[in-house]
Amino acid sequence: MNVVELIRRKRDGGALSADEIGAFVRGVTDGGVTDYQAAALLMAIYFRGLQGAELAALTDAMLHSGDVLDLSDLAGGKVDKHSTGGVGDKISLHLAPAVAACGVFVPMISGRGLGHTGGTLDKLEAIPGFSVNLDESRFRAVLRECGLALIGQTERLAPADKRLYALRDVTGTVESIPLIAASIMSKKLAEGIDGLVLDVKVGSGAFMKTPERARELARTLVDIGKRAGKRVTAFLTDMDQPLGRWIGNAVEVHESLMVLQGHGEPDLVELTLTLGGEMLVLGGAAKSADEGRGRIARALGDGSALERFRRCVALQGGAIPDSEHRWFPAAHEKVEAGAGFVQRIDAEAVGMAALRLGAGRTRKEDAIDPGAWVRLMAKVGERVERGHSVAFFSQPRDPKVAAEVRERLRAAFTLGPEQPAPRPLVLEVIR
Amino acid sequence: MNVVELIRRKRDGGALSADEIGAFVRGVTDGGVTDYQAAALLMAIYFRGLQGAELAALTDAMLHSGDVLDLSDLAGGKVDKHSTGGVGDKISLHLAPAVAACGVFVPMISGRGLGHTGGTLDKLEAIPGFSVNLDESRFRAVLRECGLALIGQTERLAPADKRLYALRDVTGTVESIPLIAASIMSKKLAEGIDGLVLDVKVGSGAFMKTPERARELARTLVDIGKRAGKRVTAFLTDMDQPLGRWIGNAVEVHESLMVLQGHGEPDLVELTLTLGGEMLVLGGAAKSADEGRGRIARALGDGSALERFRRCVALQGGAIPDSEHRWFPAAHEKVEAGAGFVQRIDAEAVGMAALRLGAGRTRKEDAIDPGAWVRLMAKVGERVERGHSVAFFSQPRDPKVAAEVRERLRAAFTLGPEQPAPRPLVLEVIR
Repeated sequence: MNVVELIRRKRDGGALSADEIGAFVRGVTDGGVTDYQAAALLMAIYFRGLQGAELAALTDAMLHSGDVLDLSDLAGGKVDKHSTGGVGDKISLHLAPAVAACGVFVPMISGRGLGHTGGTLDKLEAIPGFSVNLDESRFRAVLRECGLALIGQTERLAPADKRLYALRDVTGTVESIPLIAASIMSKKLAEGIDGLVLDVKVGSGAFMKTPERARELARTLVDIGKRAGKRVTAFLTDMDQPLGRWIGNAVEVHESLMVLQGHGEPDLVELTLTLGGEMLVLGGAAKSADEGRGRIARALGDGSALERFRRCVALQGGAIPDSEHRWFPAAHEKVEAGAGFVQRIDAEAVGMAALRLGAGRTRKEDAIDPGAWVRLMAKVGERVERGHSVAFFSQPRDPKVAAEVRERLRAAFTLGPEQPAPRPLVLEVIR
Repeated sequence: MNVVELIRRKRDGGALSADEIGAFVRGVTDGGVTDYQAAALLMAIYFRGLQGAELAALTDAMLHSGDVLDLSDLAGGKVDKHSTGGVGDKISLHLAPAVAACGVFVPMISGRGLGHTGGTLDKLEAIPGFSVNLDESRFRAVLRECGLALIGQTERLAPADKRLYALRDVTGTVESIPLIAASIMSKKLAEGIDGLVLDVKVGSGAFMKTPERARELARTLVDIGKRAGKRVTAFLTDMDQPLGRWIGNAVEVHESLMVLQGHGEPDLVELTLTLGGEMLVLGGAAKSADEGRGRIARALGDGSALERFRRCVALQGGAIPDSEHRWFPAAHEKVEAGAGFVQRIDAEAVGMAALRLGAGRTRKEDAIDPGAWVRLMAKVGERVERGHSVAFFSQPRDPKVAAEVRERLRAAFTLGPEQPAPRPLVLEVIR
């Protein structure tokens, strides 16, 4: 393989063959391709894109750069959910046990938060003792035992993606739809699943700020999945305001537990029913989305989902504290923003405020504070009276940080005299 | 400096400040910027280009990454010529001594051949004993003594360009007009010259295949030079057929000596008068291009240019052999191409044939054979009779190579029944 020739061809808008892409990915995995040549090709792909066949070949090569799980010994559908990342998105934590309680296995491999978005692994690690690092045999055992397992990406899963992602992160080539899609799907297809539900976020708190970009990503993801012979459904969902009322790590587990106890926030419950219902359809446990929604609602209401979650946490070494005060500090600051109906809550700004408190990380190496949090006291459409708080946040040590976060949160809220029309949470379905 | 932020801004079509570009180039020089980040930025520049101020800042930063010569102690104009590279282009060898003979200093720093194009350094090194590696004090001494010095780029001259060029070569980012222009001008402006004449080649044997691209490069080069306070003139000249009749290394010195002895090929002489006349104008030794042409013609006719060349060769350790048979092997193969008027000679194909014989190099590390050559027995507009040769070439050891080169050269010639209209050699002047 002449890498310069591949770079030049892609740079000039030509296509690469499956063999060429395979050789490139092997070179990325074994070090035969230099970082600078990989960086140049990634930037050329950023500008020129990839055709469907190229993208399928790239995903396939990345997927086969490491182990591919074979879960065919488990009798039943195996379905995962992937979200492109948002603020306050703790859905996975209660969705996975709800789906498992309905008879579909959920082998879920999640990521960490970066920038203004949180990550499922960080939230799980706020549970004392919980381990997200299971080897393959332990992962299989937990999955068989309780129907779900919640772990992080292992070294052996799609290692080419690991190296390419690290390189994209430092070379300004993250925001490329084909590269995002290949990265997501190579990891998901390595999980040994039959079906996948994608939650593609749109809005200020999402990576995709417009429905056009989100739709393009969703279609690209669905196309890759179908070419690989999987059942895939993508939902475009609103991320213009945060999901639920709590943003942080321990607090999001707390809020998920409330969903599992049958008194979750309406937006959290609605999204869980939508995604979970579809997962049951793809996993063969429901004939229609409506039937699926009903079964998920029952699993949330009858305690069976909560029981699955408790078993999973115990199997992965964790113990859920009894009281919320053991989970996260109660001392907090308040944010006022005047009076009126909440028109908008800038999700990205809320995410950045939580990040500033220590709930997130700017760089992958950063440590996070699992106890840092933001709580929204009002959401879009709700009325705020003068003197009432729109948000609380955990008290930081540094008063300068408190002042900065208060200002950020105040600015994130837009209030107005009229109650805004309700916005749909699920904007579009792409199959 | 946050390099990722610079890459992303350029990727999105924004501009970089002079300080940012300066910090990037310092990082390239001292290793503070990684190769993969430099590669990503180069590819983003390939797609987005550079604005005038960015390009001036890049050139200036590259120029000041190493030593900048100060030749103000030499009384008289200091002017250099740069060609963007062609086939059979041995102009520098006789142009520099002709200009020096007319009272303008020519501190010439040249490059090596790559691909189908030859390089002045390779040609000079075909002269037994000639050294192109002089340190700065020896370079100054030779220049003061005979009015010209012909050397290669030193380690201390524009080191940032060296590193960036090496990286561009392996990352598919060579063919970017702003990057080409910054590379050329950073080296030329480090020479301590007052003026520069640029020979921008256009046609099949040139890097710029169309007048549009060549014009864009010429304008970019002139603009950078003017922003740096230099007098710069660019000529767009024809490189659709090779210059002169000999292609190789020793043979091109031989053909240059013929120009210096007053019986050069018409195209070589014409281009020498054009470029040299302008160099005299920029160096203050002629009031008009016509006056300059006349003075160059006299220097070629009265032996004064030849005398300068001989002095320069001697000062740089070389000795010109007496007979052409000491220079290059006489044994040769012949190429026939039928009968008719030569309509076209594909310069790139001729350059590739010479490369195949060993006259050039595919990679920078390759050794060349100074004795390998191609001789054109007919040029565009000349009549060939059946059974006559259109070209000779030096006999390679391997008969398979001979057959391949013969076929390449045969295919390079297009013959037809009508004599084609003469084409101008100088297509355009850009000041």
